[in-house]
Amino acid sequence: MEEKEISKAVIKRLPRYYRYLGELLESGVERISSNELSTKMKVTASQIRQDLNNFGGFGQQGYGYNVKHLYTEIGKILGLDQNHNVIIIGAGNLGQAIANYGAFEKRGFIINGIFDVNPRLQGVTVRGIEIRMIDELEQFIKENNVQIAALTIPKSKAAEMADLLIEYGVKAIWNFAHTDLNLPEEVLVENVHLSESLMRLSYNITRYEKEHFKD
Amino acid sequence: MEEKEISKAVIKRLPRYYRYLGELLESGVERISSNELSTKMKVTASQIRQDLNNFGGFGQQGYGYNVKHLYTEIGKILGLDQNHNVIIIGAGNLGQAIANYGAFEKRGFIINGIFDVNPRLQGVTVRGIEIRMIDELEQFIKENNVQIAALTIPKSKAAEMADLLIEYGVKAIWNFAHTDLNLPEEVLVENVHLSESLMRLSYNITRYEKEHFKD
Repeated sequence: MEEKEISKAVIKRLPRYYRYLGELLESGVERISSNELSTKMKVTASQIRQDLNNFGGFGQQGYGYNVKHLYTEIGKILGLDQNHNVIIIGAGNLGQAIANYGAFEKRGFIINGIFDVNPRLQGVTVRGIEIRMIDELEQFIKENNVQIAALTIPKSKAAEMADLLIEYGVKAIWNFAHTDLNLPEEVLVENVHLSESLMRLSYNITRYEKEHFKD
Repeated sequence: MEEKEISKAVIKRLPRYYRYLGELLESGVERISSNELSTKMKVTASQIRQDLNNFGGFGQQGYGYNVKHLYTEIGKILGLDQNHNVIIIGAGNLGQAIANYGAFEKRGFIINGIFDVNPRLQGVTVRGIEIRMIDELEQFIKENNVQIAALTIPKSKAAEMADLLIEYGVKAIWNFAHTDLNLPEEVLVENVHLSESLMRLSYNITRYEKEHFKD
């Protein structure tokens, strides 16, 4: 199938569509019009129609969208119909929080290893997943066809670890370290910079207070 | 001081400037040109100049930026020169990860309470911060002038809890629950939807594989 280039903005919105459609499915809704979806998601109906048209539509004029069909198709576009092997680097609270979140598994993200440098954690399991030491990393990645590594270690060690992961064959890094990684272009990186998110909140609070409590 | 409207895109980038300037400071750099900063941050020098001009400049032609001054000024814009009282709702791994991250405190986000519904956690401390039960929530928020609540609870309970928090006087919600919150317009919300971030990674992996391993 010939695919046209889809804009980053649309891709950014797809997971949100997927989440809303999943919630609709759970509550037994079979069909939804772009207007109803628009009200729920607080985006314009025309935006929804435009976004979904990127993937050939899915809607029939006057009938709305078939929720299950749309959910499944967006899932395929997002690659959620395939399994992805994931490891977590760093067995601290954040690493364990990710390991414990079972819903990732339902969407095809199979966490099959957790790695740490702390020897006291060796062999401890989180949701049945064993914590291993870094010296097993290379072999584990190669034998288990690991595609994604979640990096939940301090920023001082992040760059070095990312280089190792790529060298051992990992294709994508889900980066929680508070730093940007300088990696080859073909490596996919998704950053979750929590402190930046908190600063945006702080900016907005400060601005809000200035506007509402002027001298 | 008269302030002009600053675009969301600029605000989104400010924390990243702040982070890079902080790293430069730590490594003893006193001055940097927009060109050097541009190479480091992988954005164009003209973008940097434009962004920083929103706040009256800070650079002198030919002299570059004074790193410490710029860092301090951006910090003020972001509201990091003031303390913000933060509570965490949900003492699971994610809540504890946030509580344990000391760097938030250095930037003025003072975590002074953690709340949970599990009675076994009552009185347990995380980095010296006591875990309290939800029945203490109202009084605690009012007595401690809590501005921000980090919501790290399952999505099924998130909406109800958010309503309570707002009723008790919280101004901003840092939402980690896998759902959007329907809150009054004046409530500030910053969403961290981890599963959406993981789906974007999955989309990119799937697309990358299609492009590189065509039949």
